[in-house]
Amino acid sequence: MNRPANDTFLRALLRQPTEYAPVWLMRQAGRYLPEYCETRKRVGSFPDLCKSPSLACEVALQPLARYRLDAAILFSDILTVPDAMGLGLYFSEKGPCFERPLREERAIRDLAVPDPHGPLRYVMDAVTETRRALAGSVPLIGFAGSPFTLACYMVEGEPGSEFARLKTMIYDRPDLVHRILSTNAEAVTEYLNAQIESGVHAVMLFDSWGGCLSEAAYREFSLAYMRRILGGLIRERDGQRIPSIVFTKGGGLWLEEIAACGCDALGLDWTIGIGAARRRVGERVALQGNLDPSVLLASPDAIIRETRAVLDDFGAPGTGHVFNLGHGVSRFTPPEHVAVLVDTVHDYSRRLREK
Amino acid sequence: MNRPANDTFLRALLRQPTEYAPVWLMRQAGRYLPEYCETRKRVGSFPDLCKSPSLACEVALQPLARYRLDAAILFSDILTVPDAMGLGLYFSEKGPCFERPLREERAIRDLAVPDPHGPLRYVMDAVTETRRALAGSVPLIGFAGSPFTLACYMVEGEPGSEFARLKTMIYDRPDLVHRILSTNAEAVTEYLNAQIESGVHAVMLFDSWGGCLSEAAYREFSLAYMRRILGGLIRERDGQRIPSIVFTKGGGLWLEEIAACGCDALGLDWTIGIGAARRRVGERVALQGNLDPSVLLASPDAIIRETRAVLDDFGAPGTGHVFNLGHGVSRFTPPEHVAVLVDTVHDYSRRLREK
Repeated sequence: MNRPANDTFLRALLRQPTEYAPVWLMRQAGRYLPEYCETRKRVGSFPDLCKSPSLACEVALQPLARYRLDAAILFSDILTVPDAMGLGLYFSEKGPCFERPLREERAIRDLAVPDPHGPLRYVMDAVTETRRALAGSVPLIGFAGSPFTLACYMVEGEPGSEFARLKTMIYDRPDLVHRILSTNAEAVTEYLNAQIESGVHAVMLFDSWGGCLSEAAYREFSLAYMRRILGGLIRERDGQRIPSIVFTKGGGLWLEEIAACGCDALGLDWTIGIGAARRRVGERVALQGNLDPSVLLASPDAIIRETRAVLDDFGAPGTGHVFNLGHGVSRFTPPEHVAVLVDTVHDYSRRLREK
Repeated sequence: MNRPANDTFLRALLRQPTEYAPVWLMRQAGRYLPEYCETRKRVGSFPDLCKSPSLACEVALQPLARYRLDAAILFSDILTVPDAMGLGLYFSEKGPCFERPLREERAIRDLAVPDPHGPLRYVMDAVTETRRALAGSVPLIGFAGSPFTLACYMVEGEPGSEFARLKTMIYDRPDLVHRILSTNAEAVTEYLNAQIESGVHAVMLFDSWGGCLSEAAYREFSLAYMRRILGGLIRERDGQRIPSIVFTKGGGLWLEEIAACGCDALGLDWTIGIGAARRRVGERVALQGNLDPSVLLASPDAIIRETRAVLDDFGAPGTGHVFNLGHGVSRFTPPEHVAVLVDTVHDYSRRLREK
């Protein structure tokens, strides 16, 4: 596993000094890019795009052709794993749905870990192909959903329910929820390890919905299983550490506990000041974030001002900061605004470090 | 203004000793109650229900006939104020919408404070009628939306946008946003003062969406205007203090700042442990909350266990705790489950205090 020519992102995740703050954006390959929309129109649906390694590779590289980004991320979806478990993923107008949501005890007991080289082979092929296409330029990030976030989708089966079914199960039948989460944790561990073996340089766990839990429930039903995954990951390959990032949206209250779960970096949403977060956990982990994605809908002047404000808030010398949004790029983002953001991060953070 | 026979709720808000933890529930008059659905079916629409003082009074009292609640809340909606400003409130399948959302500079400059005794007269009549019907039994809570939360609806005009328009305006034209918020703050101050003059015993500000802001933006665009309102409220009537409650959903990171805004009590959602919140701000304000509303969908055993856990977490002697959910009652709640909750709060908190 050769080191990419630009390894700023990997060094920042390990809190090693870098010349500037590396930047990538969640959902950087997506609908705000006209070239993405064209590729997607060609193939038809979003799942078909994920399932074609060559097209997934094509769209993963699109934002890198436009912007000086410091990392690429595998183009895929967190729901590939429950789909491979046989739940039947499809997309309605409201969002992702499952044909066979997990509601019955028998179905929960029968849930099995999918072979990452079987029904998820296409993801590993996308990793291999994207890694090859990057040709050693920047690192490739692999990812998966957290066991709890996957369970939200698996039990509810459709968006918009505020997770009433899963939460009722948490309070009434915690044993069943733990059964789902154990299976998910094992599945995600194998899935991420297969991505690492296929060539990703870092991995990220997306815990999109952990923030909807109470503190006690978060600890028991989300964090515990992310810790289990991190304990089972391949941590080095060819002598290089594979850094891990954990992102619980809405998890600002629990940073200390999340920072102790075995990850190298914490993703932050925009509701917490990154300077305050650094004071709380910056000695233990790197921080990734955390510009409000809505800023990209505003004018270039506002983008420059707000981007600098995040860098200023993190503070000098800036070691251990990976710049990102606090959530995915909005589909309504003008593509030229992303260039303003990326250039501001590079130029301004370099100046801050030269001071 | 006579003191209600049961003033436990008012004393708890002022952090005076009480024999047990008083309890009321956000959205306690609502669709989970069959009698509410019947009244609503009779009148037709939700806005018509709000606009009929006698029917608003009828539904406000329905939960008190079923449960030993320690307070009633005015039956109304936070969007009565922008509706009275001329924005044209209506309800689609997706939720509340405005016919004339605030998008143009001219419309924003023309926005005017509505006379609470003019187009909002029906709300004051509902206060008078409900207060009379309560016949001195328990206190009546008045309420309004926070200036920022009202602005979310006023600018977006329809649900589901993640507030992209208002946020873009915050970053590009903060002057216009401040103009809306100033008008809203003045309107809400006059509106709540008119409710106080009409007979409510306490007031609550609902900041449902402040938690979607960054820390700096929350301070500038939400908290500052709630502080302004609290500074302009009638604080005493007939020698009795009118306590105020501020509830920013998702505001757990900012409790210290919110507690310093001039309110008597903080509403808490369920993502923060109430014991931890008490350690942070319990010397300055009372706390209202914070059971996860999903618990009411689970079994009576689970409801008893989780309700006790909140009371235990708050800790002895329990002074300054008003029990509530961390958000409104779900429409899918079985009505008999609410009785389990209310009885558990009373009985268990009384036992804790007798220890």
